[in-house]
Amino acid sequence: VPTRRQTLQVAAATMLSGLFRPSASRAATTAVRLPDRRTLDKALRAFAKVVGDDWVFSSAEDVALYRDSYSLLWGEPDEKVAAAAVAPTSTEQVLEVVRIANQYRIPIYPISTGKNLGYGGAGPVLSGSVVLDLKRLNRILEVNERNAYAVVEPGVSYFDLYNYIQERNLKLWIDCPGPGWGSLIGNALDRGLGYTLAQYRNHFEAHCGMEIVLPTGTLMRTGMGAMPNAQTWQQFKTGYGPWVDGLFSQSNFGVVTKMGFWLMPQPEAFGIGRVYVPRYRDLIPLVDIMNRLEASHILQGFSSLSCPIIGTSIGGGPSAMVPTQQDAEIMAIVNDPNGFSPERLDAIGVKKGLNFWSCDFNLYGPAKLIDTQWSCAQDAFAAIVGARFELEIQPLPLPKEKIDALQDTVSLGIPTLRTYSTGPLTDYDGAAVVGHVFFSPVVPRTGEAVMAANDVLGKLARSHGLPVTPIQFPNPAFERAFLFVIALPVTRDIKVNQKIRKIFAELVQVAAAHGWGEYRTTPAFYDEISATYSFNDHALRRFHETLKDAVDPNGIMSAGRYGIWPRHLRPGGE
Amino acid sequence: VPTRRQTLQVAAATMLSGLFRPSASRAATTAVRLPDRRTLDKALRAFAKVVGDDWVFSSAEDVALYRDSYSLLWGEPDEKVAAAAVAPTSTEQVLEVVRIANQYRIPIYPISTGKNLGYGGAGPVLSGSVVLDLKRLNRILEVNERNAYAVVEPGVSYFDLYNYIQERNLKLWIDCPGPGWGSLIGNALDRGLGYTLAQYRNHFEAHCGMEIVLPTGTLMRTGMGAMPNAQTWQQFKTGYGPWVDGLFSQSNFGVVTKMGFWLMPQPEAFGIGRVYVPRYRDLIPLVDIMNRLEASHILQGFSSLSCPIIGTSIGGGPSAMVPTQQDAEIMAIVNDPNGFSPERLDAIGVKKGLNFWSCDFNLYGPAKLIDTQWSCAQDAFAAIVGARFELEIQPLPLPKEKIDALQDTVSLGIPTLRTYSTGPLTDYDGAAVVGHVFFSPVVPRTGEAVMAANDVLGKLARSHGLPVTPIQFPNPAFERAFLFVIALPVTRDIKVNQKIRKIFAELVQVAAAHGWGEYRTTPAFYDEISATYSFNDHALRRFHETLKDAVDPNGIMSAGRYGIWPRHLRPGGE
Repeated sequence: VPTRRQTLQVAAATMLSGLFRPSASRAATTAVRLPDRRTLDKALRAFAKVVGDDWVFSSAEDVALYRDSYSLLWGEPDEKVAAAAVAPTSTEQVLEVVRIANQYRIPIYPISTGKNLGYGGAGPVLSGSVVLDLKRLNRILEVNERNAYAVVEPGVSYFDLYNYIQERNLKLWIDCPGPGWGSLIGNALDRGLGYTLAQYRNHFEAHCGMEIVLPTGTLMRTGMGAMPNAQTWQQFKTGYGPWVDGLFSQSNFGVVTKMGFWLMPQPEAFGIGRVYVPRYRDLIPLVDIMNRLEASHILQGFSSLSCPIIGTSIGGGPSAMVPTQQDAEIMAIVNDPNGFSPERLDAIGVKKGLNFWSCDFNLYGPAKLIDTQWSCAQDAFAAIVGARFELEIQPLPLPKEKIDALQDTVSLGIPTLRTYSTGPLTDYDGAAVVGHVFFSPVVPRTGEAVMAANDVLGKLARSHGLPVTPIQFPNPAFERAFLFVIALPVTRDIKVNQKIRKIFAELVQVAAAHGWGEYRTTPAFYDEISATYSFNDHALRRFHETLKDAVDPNGIMSAGRYGIWPRHLRPGGE
Repeated sequence: VPTRRQTLQVAAATMLSGLFRPSASRAATTAVRLPDRRTLDKALRAFAKVVGDDWVFSSAEDVALYRDSYSLLWGEPDEKVAAAAVAPTSTEQVLEVVRIANQYRIPIYPISTGKNLGYGGAGPVLSGSVVLDLKRLNRILEVNERNAYAVVEPGVSYFDLYNYIQERNLKLWIDCPGPGWGSLIGNALDRGLGYTLAQYRNHFEAHCGMEIVLPTGTLMRTGMGAMPNAQTWQQFKTGYGPWVDGLFSQSNFGVVTKMGFWLMPQPEAFGIGRVYVPRYRDLIPLVDIMNRLEASHILQGFSSLSCPIIGTSIGGGPSAMVPTQQDAEIMAIVNDPNGFSPERLDAIGVKKGLNFWSCDFNLYGPAKLIDTQWSCAQDAFAAIVGARFELEIQPLPLPKEKIDALQDTVSLGIPTLRTYSTGPLTDYDGAAVVGHVFFSPVVPRTGEAVMAANDVLGKLARSHGLPVTPIQFPNPAFERAFLFVIALPVTRDIKVNQKIRKIFAELVQVAAAHGWGEYRTTPAFYDEISATYSFNDHALRRFHETLKDAVDPNGIMSAGRYGIWPRHLRPGGE
């Protein structure tokens, strides 16, 4: 269990480059019926009785550590900042804290480790909320090698679980997101993504069973966990009756205090199979064949789609935008001020022996299986004239020197922070870049949709000077759709941040007009993106609100998260 | 669109052997605040204005067709029977019917095709409800071959979709449950199971996107469908914000009017790999290795676990209990009145060259991939001393003669009704058997758990004269747990049915004491099984009830389904 000092240091680490300034924002939020100072103080004293004085943070200096250092609202009156924080160490303490929050009507905002950077940090959505910091609930409750699962508390990070498995030499892998310091539960609840087999990449889908403190202060278990003495809580997801787990992702319906995750057995070997195709429009059959191979489970997840002809490296995830070798003649065509038609590159690419597209597949298993899977893939891709293939197989586990030499290790189930060394941008509009927010629309898994998204969203982003390559590669983490991520810079210059917010909002609107919706976002845009899911006069949001009011009658839990506000904070509310 | 006559004929077909008798049950339910006859008649007239006179069924003879012919309450005062039925033909009509039901407080009970036999038929849970028969909503709205999905209405059966695909020669497979006449939507919402690749077998998990008429008469779309003009409704499941789809399975929170399903591309070949192991306790490593191979996605779903030594055929699904060749000397040991210890068979089995266990894996893909997968599986299973292997590969599609000769075709994605030819029992306690109900607990995926379940549940069932083999094989449809199904007979003899209900209840209690919970059940046992999921004073059921009251304030929708009752029908309700 971390000490108080360590807890705050971890909080501080989220402020990668933020300089603390007293926030002007709290005043602005009193309009939305925050508890008065006296009531807050009473509640904080009650919290302290439960968790101990050391674990209630209310000094300006301590509370500042919970600011979202990647906030595009930094230093503005609208910046979303906490009034205080409380860090319980057990589920029982969480129950007590939630009950006290109800008693005093204190808005609370649970975080796991607060490392959801780019999609929100440790800061609340409603300024004046008390952050419920769960990083002291950091027990690994079970790792079962025979049935390949783990049960953890919210404070457990990918590094923690990885180390636990390594120390015991268990033959299990975890699937981690780009940076590995975040919480398994936090990432899964935000529906975050990883890099190994398709079935493990979607961290929410790879979960099995939850324990939840409901906003009314009741402890509930889902799935088979609802049966006392359950033997299959981590083996069978849906249990009996309505399956409620989805309600607790991207939402504010409860505090998840335990969660099971399915793990992947350690494979015998790792392979990267790569296919190159020469022409721009080859993307269409390339994606179609990929879809067929993956839906047949012959291949099980690809890792990137690249564009060698314009010299951009392997895409997917944070490194998508790193330029590598570029050919001057080709880049002149790409950067033609009169516009760029990708098909113009086909002839020159063939002449220079540069392929237009390449696509990497991660392959796991015995070497002979990887060989055969790749042979089947080649048979299928051979339908594209000029397709070329490469396969590289490494026996596992890799020796330490090899791991240390890798740019990124996430495809091998090894958590890392190396991804932070590949930032795309150091300054924007004269302001130093201190972080990023992700614009993440889901587009159809067809070549045509990738072309259209580049044409519409890529062009728009580039027109605002964002470092988006002329052809942006979709993130392949989902099984059946593409994620067309664009990273926007965050600075400490209010004017520049305001401009970036305008660009973000424009991207959201243009994408929605094309039927492309975001799968996840940062708090500054929760409401804006929620508004684009407007079918039948926002029927889904109204349904979410109906559930919210029923489950959290006092509206104390994570008000505003993913655009869901309790009744008393909604326009026209009580 | 079927005619009125055809609709009723389809309803009638669910009464496989039921003889209509006027039911005594409706009177018994008036205690639970059913609308009076005059109000009901007004509502029926209002329904008729929406759907036409021909599509409101209220004569005793018509309504009787909606009885559950597999009901263990048949002919008793507690039998759950409808007051009438209404069959709309469009989503707009469903919306109108639901609004009228609210206006007159008429309990309605949506069914898709009413073919959930063994887990409930077309009958409601609350007697006096009006069945909302959706089988005229039978449009196949889209089948997309490139992205391998279908969008259907609730009246579309597995046969319908199969025929649609065959007629157009699309290279797609469907995954069907035992009998293929049911509804894709109905089966998925009841969280039904199939027989092909692991990722398609779980019909609820293989869905993507819903359209729902909420109990208040509002139309809602989930996932990406909440965005107007959505391009990825059938490609990305969770959308933005809380994922609500799970709420509409095994529940009564809405009427699903459209649903997307992920389909499997037609494979090149089909293989059955079989492993035999000689001794009783070999089951433990057999299951462990199977788990590792499946969690690694080297194998992707096995089809059965059998017990050649006692002469029982391939298990899993409805044919699990069919005896084949049996050795007299061995059966004498098995049927020893002083009790049966399976380990006693090891030596004699080795002497006679009979293996204790065998396990079949379905393999799909190019023949060379099947070969390699099976070679990898052999490498792993070879750790069991005496393991033997067989592999049979068939190129696809199979010629018609071969298909016609098969006992069952579901592993090939071909819907069938042949499963009805394999009933385990013709009479019980002197009464003719007319159907069955399934007792379906989930047990851990370990050899020890299979042994324990046989020892506890199998023995208990046999002690009541049920035709359960001395070693019962778990159904392997789930990815990470076993389903230990026992079929109990249904008769038309009230005394015998009462006895069977007592046995069923005893099985439920004994299983719960071991931490084994049912994943699904028939209406007669909804409440009983719900009660076993009692963690923290039934916290999950109370949560379900909180949601139910919020979503369906008048309590008109499927009252009692999966043990969820609206407030006014709960003990201590208003």
